[in-house]
Amino acid sequence: MAARHPERDQIRLEEVLSALGNPIRLNIARILGTQGERACGAVGTQLDTEMSKSTLTHHWRVLRDAGVIWQRPEGRENLLSLRWEDLNALYPGLLDSILGSAARQAAS
Amino acid sequence: MAARHPERDQIRLEEVLSALGNPIRLNIARILGTQGERACGAVGTQLDTEMSKSTLTHHWRVLRDAGVIWQRPEGRENLLSLRWEDLNALYPGLLDSILGSAARQAAS
Repeated sequence: MAARHPERDQIRLEEVLSALGNPIRLNIARILGTQGERACGAVGTQLDTEMSKSTLTHHWRVLRDAGVIWQRPEGRENLLSLRWEDLNALYPGLLDSILGSAARQAAS
Repeated sequence: MAARHPERDQIRLEEVLSALGNPIRLNIARILGTQGERACGAVGTQLDTEMSKSTLTHHWRVLRDAGVIWQRPEGRENLLSLRWEDLNALYPGLLDSILGSAARQAAS
């Protein structure tokens, strides 16, 4: 079953910032920003901490509900990707700026 | 008594995003971004909703603890201002991008 996603005009900046205002979710966004669409499992294994499936599911949901990511089923997997087109239409340059800042912090 | 503030190198991106990931606090940042340093009371009266002093105090504290604002006493008032210099040094362009996005959303 396809998960529910907010429409573009339902996305709110404060919810995008709040969703990304967490080290795990910021890291998930960085991974998707660098690698493009990825399966949930493949993203999960790249995180610093080992997390239960239910914890990961919670993080995907927060990002999805805020309009930060698409989540779509393919076979037995769920694929995740950033909503670049919607976020850039609403807030030009914001996602680039946040991911750039995250990369800068990670490198420091 | 002067409030405690994190040093520049203690500021974390996820905490900045989380602090701004709230409609009231995002609005406070917009007001300070447009008007520069302002007294707590003067900011409070510009918010859409009337809020108790303790609620406002909570919001100043979250922004201050995340490293988003300076809060300094002057006479019987507390003055608030954005930490432009620190935030731009850590994350060049990020605060501009967030405040620009907030202005865009408010105008839509």
